[in-house]
Amino acid sequence: MKSLTEYLTYNVKGRRGFVNISSDVRKLVLKSKVQEGLCLVNAMHITASVFINDNESGLHHDYEKWLESLAPHEPVDQYEHNNTGEDNADAHLKRQIMGREVVIAITDGKLDFGPWEQIFYGEFDGQRPKRVLVKIIGE
Amino acid sequence: MKSLTEYLTYNVKGRRGFVNISSDVRKLVLKSKVQEGLCLVNAMHITASVFINDNESGLHHDYEKWLESLAPHEPVDQYEHNNTGEDNADAHLKRQIMGREVVIAITDGKLDFGPWEQIFYGEFDGQRPKRVLVKIIGE
Amino acid sequence: MKSLTEYLTYNVKGRRGFVNISSDVRKLVLKSKVQEGLCLVNAMHITASVFINDNESGLHHDYEKWLESLAPHEPVDQYEHNNTGEDNADAHLKRQIMGREVVIAITDGKLDFGPWEQIFYGEFDGQRPKRVLVKIIGE
Repeated sequence: MKSLTEYLTYNVKGRRGFVNISSDVRKLVLKSKVQEGLCLVNAMHITASVFINDNESGLHHDYEKWLESLAPHEPVDQYEHNNTGEDNADAHLKRQIMGREVVIAITDGKLDFGPWEQIFYGEFDGQRPKRVLVKIIGE
Repeated sequence: MKSLTEYLTYNVKGRRGFVNISSDVRKLVLKSKVQEGLCLVNAMHITASVFINDNESGLHHDYEKWLESLAPHEPVDQYEHNNTGEDNADAHLKRQIMGREVVIAITDGKLDFGPWEQIFYGEFDGQRPKRVLVKIIGE
Repeated sequence: MKSLTEYLTYNVKGRRGFVNISSDVRKLVLKSKVQEGLCLVNAMHITASVFINDNESGLHHDYEKWLESLAPHEPVDQYEHNNTGEDNADAHLKRQIMGREVVIAITDGKLDFGPWEQIFYGEFDGQRPKRVLVKIIGE
């Protein structure tokens, strides 16, 4: 069994944003030399997500608006978590909707994707460097 | 390490619907001859889900109604994504609630399931054939 | 390839609650002797979740309140599923938000976690023993 472990770092300038990390992950699949296996990609921070969806800026705008409606940032005192001195309770909620991780099949040495699948890092409490773990196992 | 890769195709007649795909996945577990391992099942389209829950028609009705309340299809012009000429922005949102994929343990050559676990394909923008990937690795 | 399969049982006294199961899972990773691999942790019941987030009681209170607002338990007759004689339709909905499972990398014989990641069992229809599956594969 082969395996590869790598840590990617992203620093989103604003509080929230989406970053297409597909090409970063593809490079690691090549580096792993795994032909048949599984690729786990997960946020290592609990106010961020890794998810697979469309690379379309209008949709990302819709996600932002929708997540704000389901788990609004303000007023920050509506959340008990923010009594700890933080203001990011909403980010912990948004991350549950969008998910922590994706697991992707590797077939013939490549990510086995449908036509529109792209991997995104979703940041909900940004303005600092945060890490994404890529773990690949297989043969 | 053994591995198996298969693509299942589903064509849901309406815009939305749930299909029990448990028996299709079980056949592939047998075919793989894997005794101990992991089985990844994921939608290859970004307006569909694969999830595990109850095979109960009332619950599926509740999911439909609930997802429509959280991310309504209409009015279609409430979503920026639909300015691209599509009308399926809501499907991209619904899929995030229900999830892209499941990872299931294989133990003694079988899906290691609790008493009520069943695998469903969730379609949110149907009326055309769409694919589900099954990837099995193990020994 | 090494593998380990174990079943953990949790009995939450109230209808809903969160249990930190990180140390239970860590013991199984040690027991497996896997140095590089993947660890799947999933609820075997469809009214419960396994998820990764912060070990902070204020946040757990926020999750409880938020999930109740998105999928309220009462009135129970708002859900068709409850016509079966059950009253737990809301639990099936809440579990989709929080997720069924997590997949965690094992690196150098340990769960490869960010600084704040902790594993929780989320119960949405408790007062009885329910199982969580831990499956570890790797080398």
